[in-house]
Amino acid sequence: MTDRVPVLKIGQILLVSIQTDLEDQMVLDLQEDLSQRIVDTNAEGVVIDITALEIVDSFVGRMLATIAAISRVLGSETVVVGMRPAVAMTLVELGLSLPGVRTALTLERGMEQIKRLNQNPTAIR
Amino acid sequence: MTDRVPVLKIGQILLVSIQTDLEDQMVLDLQEDLSQRIVDTNAEGVVIDITALEIVDSFVGRMLATIAAISRVLGSETVVVGMRPAVAMTLVELGLSLPGVRTALTLERGMEQIKRLNQNPTAIR
Repeated sequence: MTDRVPVLKIGQILLVSIQTDLEDQMVLDLQEDLSQRIVDTNAEGVVIDITALEIVDSFVGRMLATIAAISRVLGSETVVVGMRPAVAMTLVELGLSLPGVRTALTLERGMEQIKRLNQNPTAIR
Repeated sequence: MTDRVPVLKIGQILLVSIQTDLEDQMVLDLQEDLSQRIVDTNAEGVVIDITALEIVDSFVGRMLATIAAISRVLGSETVVVGMRPAVAMTLVELGLSLPGVRTALTLERGMEQIKRLNQNPTAIR
């Protein structure tokens, strides 16, 4: 039995707030729940809040990249918000600069970024 | 004798709805029909609906990328819509994240995306 990460809906945006260190099964469940919710709710985008995470290692980095890729093929944008300064420094030192993942400082900025992206679709990546 | 995939015209947009697994010849016919129709109808864009597909393998992925590329050199945008959550997850797990292919959740959103792209042409790719 594992806990599931809750997926909240705010307007047309889905919010995933990661509060604890995730185990493998929780990550797989989250990917499944989230892709189902994106389609069911016709979401404009996904915001992943990692404010609570003190460490982002390559496992978490890969999870963020995978979630962003799944959302993208479903036509939905993902923005990671709330990264701590120390986490950003560690990520870059480790050479994990989260390719393909959009980031914003705060939840508010992340939601604005999604709205802008929906109004002005970007060039093909 | 092989069936052909129908290409419908809705306003200035061409709609291709893929209902069955495609064989090689059907894919070639579709590419030919579609490029001819883009030119004949002066279409603003192409929407490919894959709601009916339960599996998108590398063959289908390549076909979508090829159609998008053909449309692009003809000056027309392509958006793939109706991808199922399970299909999105499988694609990403297989490393097939459809580079160069735009996606949207629903037919409606796909058509909106094409209209916006025509109003705001993006930078050279």
